[in-house]
Amino acid sequence: MKIRVSTQMDGDLYRFYQEEADKPAVSPGEILVRIDASSLNYHDLAVVDGRRKIPDGLVPLNDGAGTVEAVGEGVTEFAVGDRVMSRFFPRWIAGKPSQDRLFEVPGDQVDGFAAGHVARAATAFTRIPQGYSLIEAATLPCAAMTAWRALFVEGRVRPGSVVVTQGTGGMSVFALQFAKAAGAIVIATSSSETKMARLGELGADHVLNYRENPAWGRQVLKLTDGRGADLVVEVGGGDTLMQSAIAARVGGQIALIGALDGAMSENPTRMLLSRNVTLSGLSVANRDDQMEMVRAIEATGLRPVIDRVFPLGELREAFLHQKAGRHFGKICLDYRAG
Amino acid sequence: MKIRVSTQMDGDLYRFYQEEADKPAVSPGEILVRIDASSLNYHDLAVVDGRRKIPDGLVPLNDGAGTVEAVGEGVTEFAVGDRVMSRFFPRWIAGKPSQDRLFEVPGDQVDGFAAGHVARAATAFTRIPQGYSLIEAATLPCAAMTAWRALFVEGRVRPGSVVVTQGTGGMSVFALQFAKAAGAIVIATSSSETKMARLGELGADHVLNYRENPAWGRQVLKLTDGRGADLVVEVGGGDTLMQSAIAARVGGQIALIGALDGAMSENPTRMLLSRNVTLSGLSVANRDDQMEMVRAIEATGLRPVIDRVFPLGELREAFLHQKAGRHFGKICLDYRAG
Amino acid sequence: MKIRVSTQMDGDLYRFYQEEADKPAVSPGEILVRIDASSLNYHDLAVVDGRRKIPDGLVPLNDGAGTVEAVGEGVTEFAVGDRVMSRFFPRWIAGKPSQDRLFEVPGDQVDGFAAGHVARAATAFTRIPQGYSLIEAATLPCAAMTAWRALFVEGRVRPGSVVVTQGTGGMSVFALQFAKAAGAIVIATSSSETKMARLGELGADHVLNYRENPAWGRQVLKLTDGRGADLVVEVGGGDTLMQSAIAARVGGQIALIGALDGAMSENPTRMLLSRNVTLSGLSVANRDDQMEMVRAIEATGLRPVIDRVFPLGELREAFLHQKAGRHFGKICLDYRAG
Amino acid sequence: MKIRVSTQMDGDLYRFYQEEADKPAVSPGEILVRIDASSLNYHDLAVVDGRRKIPDGLVPLNDGAGTVEAVGEGVTEFAVGDRVMSRFFPRWIAGKPSQDRLFEVPGDQVDGFAAGHVARAATAFTRIPQGYSLIEAATLPCAAMTAWRALFVEGRVRPGSVVVTQGTGGMSVFALQFAKAAGAIVIATSSSETKMARLGELGADHVLNYRENPAWGRQVLKLTDGRGADLVVEVGGGDTLMQSAIAARVGGQIALIGALDGAMSENPTRMLLSRNVTLSGLSVANRDDQMEMVRAIEATGLRPVIDRVFPLGELREAFLHQKAGRHFGKICLDYRAG
Repeated sequence: MKIRVSTQMDGDLYRFYQEEADKPAVSPGEILVRIDASSLNYHDLAVVDGRRKIPDGLVPLNDGAGTVEAVGEGVTEFAVGDRVMSRFFPRWIAGKPSQDRLFEVPGDQVDGFAAGHVARAATAFTRIPQGYSLIEAATLPCAAMTAWRALFVEGRVRPGSVVVTQGTGGMSVFALQFAKAAGAIVIATSSSETKMARLGELGADHVLNYRENPAWGRQVLKLTDGRGADLVVEVGGGDTLMQSAIAARVGGQIALIGALDGAMSENPTRMLLSRNVTLSGLSVANRDDQMEMVRAIEATGLRPVIDRVFPLGELREAFLHQKAGRHFGKICLDYRAG
Repeated sequence: MKIRVSTQMDGDLYRFYQEEADKPAVSPGEILVRIDASSLNYHDLAVVDGRRKIPDGLVPLNDGAGTVEAVGEGVTEFAVGDRVMSRFFPRWIAGKPSQDRLFEVPGDQVDGFAAGHVARAATAFTRIPQGYSLIEAATLPCAAMTAWRALFVEGRVRPGSVVVTQGTGGMSVFALQFAKAAGAIVIATSSSETKMARLGELGADHVLNYRENPAWGRQVLKLTDGRGADLVVEVGGGDTLMQSAIAARVGGQIALIGALDGAMSENPTRMLLSRNVTLSGLSVANRDDQMEMVRAIEATGLRPVIDRVFPLGELREAFLHQKAGRHFGKICLDYRAG
Repeated sequence: MKIRVSTQMDGDLYRFYQEEADKPAVSPGEILVRIDASSLNYHDLAVVDGRRKIPDGLVPLNDGAGTVEAVGEGVTEFAVGDRVMSRFFPRWIAGKPSQDRLFEVPGDQVDGFAAGHVARAATAFTRIPQGYSLIEAATLPCAAMTAWRALFVEGRVRPGSVVVTQGTGGMSVFALQFAKAAGAIVIATSSSETKMARLGELGADHVLNYRENPAWGRQVLKLTDGRGADLVVEVGGGDTLMQSAIAARVGGQIALIGALDGAMSENPTRMLLSRNVTLSGLSVANRDDQMEMVRAIEATGLRPVIDRVFPLGELREAFLHQKAGRHFGKICLDYRAG
Repeated sequence: MKIRVSTQMDGDLYRFYQEEADKPAVSPGEILVRIDASSLNYHDLAVVDGRRKIPDGLVPLNDGAGTVEAVGEGVTEFAVGDRVMSRFFPRWIAGKPSQDRLFEVPGDQVDGFAAGHVARAATAFTRIPQGYSLIEAATLPCAAMTAWRALFVEGRVRPGSVVVTQGTGGMSVFALQFAKAAGAIVIATSSSETKMARLGELGADHVLNYRENPAWGRQVLKLTDGRGADLVVEVGGGDTLMQSAIAARVGGQIALIGALDGAMSENPTRMLLSRNVTLSGLSVANRDDQMEMVRAIEATGLRPVIDRVFPLGELREAFLHQKAGRHFGKICLDYRAG
């Protein structure tokens, strides 16, 4: 079984349709995985609401977690029965990113995980954290991985670092959790009192209401005795960027992991320059990083914050829930439910 | 003798006036330096043409080079007769930048070097490269230092790196020279055929005419087999930034060392994000860096490119020459000339 | 009042003698501090048991914590009544170490903190963590600072990193605590069952008995599925180094922070080479690092493990207790007790 | 045709024997390469003189350069006729080293390049520098690659850096050449006046006779105004290590790339500790590094220093020439000669 996307709008989203499919054969170097769970990322929404250009008939969903059912010739890392999760950039195994490595993204440039079974290169997967359900594991490959890279690969968050997170999307919540696990101080922003309370429960040291205080950058300075944040995890990429540039300490860093709003009413380059701030565009991470994140999750006992789990059959409803923007953490899909 | 700036426009620039001044006394930890030379930076022009807010009566000029005439109590690094040059951030001795360290900039927040004698903390100076004249040395503290930090402190230029420089201002020409001294490939941009020829003579491997090819970013990709530049030294900070983001390789770096044009017609954050490019705002460097640059200049025999030398008495003419924008390399001031 | 050391052995240690002393005057840039507490480091023991060459009459003790009683001209960072702690290398403010910066170590090359009052450059101190007693603060400047640098300046410990600590001296216990605060997995070694139990209580994930298992390097490999440790904090520098080289993962790091035993029966260079391991000699840290550590302690609530507090008058007894080697954590001196 | 090694000594070396062999078939992902040239490394000598444990019948030689004769399914990077060179660690493509990646070394753990044709994974090769002969290319994969990693991956050599190289083996000569190409100052050591002169011709700024001055570490300090070397490329790993530790600046680095002499009469750990020196064991590099080195060679025009070229049929003579230790630079094998 596979769900595909027809590039014709049906209300706010493309039309989804289901088709029967045989289990794919497993080639040398591949594993056959029965997919049991997925989760939604901002990127997946852009795929199905027409903002990204995709091939007609694409199988959507970037994240996938499941169980190995067959192992191709030459694969020694996995055995039948192993529980695995996908990777955002299947070709990026290790080292620095390159044009070639940021390619063949599942659910975008190639078919994704809205499918009962998938056969892919073994290196397109890693094991999942011990003790995790497949639904929990399905929250990690895009959202948690991006937060991890921002904090620990490009950034250098350690005890006492000040980290700013924005909003309550999956990536931002993972960034908050990882930062706390590393002993950092977290300043989170949100626009809703309810969500602000939940951010506090997850360990945020300070929560700022960016709607009431559009100039929240100054508040970050005040909360840090004028010093500013070591790292701001930026998801807006437009007008928020100026606030992030104000909030970052001199010599600090902004990890640009999303560009939700394109408009920019003020050019922040002068601010970046005068405060010696580094702005690092980054998208997800390589396989070595994913393995390291799995070990970190096991070491710290971190659990994903799951907003709601939909049966795969309600994929459209899940996306509409995401589009409404009232979720907190990850929206998941359970392939065995309903 | 001192030259001061009255914050009233006199044509295109503030009014300059000269005043007599005694040699300042030298306090503990200070040295008294007879200033013999200076040079003009983009920053100096912004101070005297009204774009920066300065105290009325400021002594302008950020760069200064001269000879030690007296040594305060406790100073062991310098002796009378030593030839020294100033530093952009007198308080930033070593380590990372901070609010406190990027402060008391001469010729901006405090009096600069348009003066016959100056007494300052010994740490506000370093020795000059062996074999350099004081006029040559006066080109280094702001322009060369910034280029050095972009390439070797924030960047990691090494043999085979591809570096893009923009235009023919002092910083850009030093960036070209340092990059070549490190074995890099340099792609330079300019808008004039004459200047393009001179960039080639200085070792630029490729020179692009950005006026004829406003989309020069693509040309950089073509010249590098689609790979892109490891480092772009960005002086515009506005519309050029999009071209720099296109020119940088996936995972590459843009050193933002100037923001000459504020306007930004397109938001480059999506490009930075999708190509995983880092944009680092940086302003000059610390004292450790300056000492290291001096040793590098001695090791490589690099000489500054001097456009023209004006007597100090023609400071206004020098600034007007700079404002006209037809210079190539550094405009210098000789305090001993007529 | 001051305690000095006569370089004549009196039993196992040099002879200590006390002398009266006026409060020192405070010069420009200095602060006058009433010292209330100190603690013992391995380095202090080497000073008083004749292993290090010191000037006769030296005032011992590297660590000092106390209250500011007067502030010299030009000092803006501190005010009367502030609680401060000393720094190991008073001249090393920021940036990389250098010959000049690793100099004038208190209680070694210059007089230390076994004194009622001390006047020193303000930069020779930092503030103490909020909520800390002066006795707690006195444990930090040498031992905690060294552990901090090993883990977070030279090393890059983050959630999931595997850190090996050796024994139960002050530095090693701080390394364990900081590593746990950063979400790391800690494998600690000890030779006593009692101490092993306490290491476990402090959060050590695994504790190895190095006496029973002199080849404990292999055990570290086994405990990490053959991968090895990301960082080994090495205090021996002699025979333990081979075990550390075995315990480190391929591409891993050994922070050499002590050389307790000089003998080396096997040359570990082949092992370092074949496993691509880096061995970093490091001694304490700079002022920027100390400020950062203070903020990290405040963010994480970390408390020092104090073995025993002696009145300053029992300094000899404190050293003999240290020499006996049965302590766990820090031995402190309270100048107001006794 | 293949040359194999029988693990029985025949004089100073194992016995070599030749056997006929068909061209191997090319599997998916592989390329078939006609090998035209190789070169000898210290490591190859240890394989054939009994110091390393190898399988009986091993095909020796770690380096290989040749022409692609066939391309397996799925290979897009290479085409028939392309000129390629081998890699030391075929499995280490990118990123950090790991146990798995430092494996299957040709001419050691698996068959090497003393063969007319070889079929291997395409990723086990890279292209050669433009304008290089295959004999020149065959000097690079082990020796030049190791020098490159020492200077530019683990080290951070830039204009003005001080680099110490030891002796006149292939790796050391490449280290000298790369350092000069990067604008560094090179201090080389040797024991022969003739070789010293040649080191000078290659650009060494200073050449020290380590036989006449066994304490050459002090000389390095003197030549650098007491500062010491930023990087020492250490090939001895035994007694030379103490001199390297003395020669390195405070905070400097020793790249341990060879362990020619195992004995260590003094333990250098105290010196590493007190001078804050880092000793990094490193062996060769990954594929990304090799591609980068190729581009650097093209950018700088660097040419290998070839001591002598033997026909493959005189492999034994070539090894005996190497064992005699009077060579300067690389000893090569030409498969088309003789």
